[in-house]
Amino acid sequence: MDGQDEAVVRKFQKELNGGTVSLVLLAILDRSPEPLYGYEIAKRIGGALAAETPVKQGTLYPVLRSMESSELLTSRVEPSVSGPPRKYYSITDRGRTALVEWKATWTRTRDFVDATLEGNVG
Amino acid sequence: MDGQDEAVVRKFQKELNGGTVSLVLLAILDRSPEPLYGYEIAKRIGGALAAETPVKQGTLYPVLRSMESSELLTSRVEPSVSGPPRKYYSITDRGRTALVEWKATWTRTRDFVDATLEGNVG
Repeated sequence: MDGQDEAVVRKFQKELNGGTVSLVLLAILDRSPEPLYGYEIAKRIGGALAAETPVKQGTLYPVLRSMESSELLTSRVEPSVSGPPRKYYSITDRGRTALVEWKATWTRTRDFVDATLEGNVG
Repeated sequence: MDGQDEAVVRKFQKELNGGTVSLVLLAILDRSPEPLYGYEIAKRIGGALAAETPVKQGTLYPVLRSMESSELLTSRVEPSVSGPPRKYYSITDRGRTALVEWKATWTRTRDFVDATLEGNVG
């Protein structure tokens, strides 16, 4: 691959992450019994998949803020014994409703893409 | 769901389509023995899945143009017996290289999202 090929692949990964990062974040917060701060979420994603993960830590923060402004998440800031205060996120009722719908949307889109790649569409 | 919930679901579908529509288009053109024009591509996608398809026809045209300017597709305009001239698209060598990489990126991202939703991450 030359530089232009690599740029095309990076652009595709970025576009794909546009939807999937929100879904993954919401699923992780839905399953967590307690609120989580950004670095904990990044660690859970990264820890499970190491270099395999398509999600970079820097992409999480703007998504968390956007989901909070859509009222899918709520946050509270708490002091930390070892550094600056931390912002802890929890899923809201609206977030749980969205997660149910997003899962259905994800499954439909995933099956559609897989069917196309397997040659059953087109 | 209220209006705000519906907007949140629409936004998610749109973000998800950001990456998947390019992949689906490229796969369909890769498999086609002859160049296809926009409406034919839309029909192949829509025909297979009817109301199920998450891809609306209007979203195809800007993606086709963007992929042509990235040199993944090439096009030629031909007169039509039954109406205005049509723009026929074919995949380029660069497009075939991108498709191989995009499929790998898609599989990795899909498996990652599925693992998260099944509770194996987080």
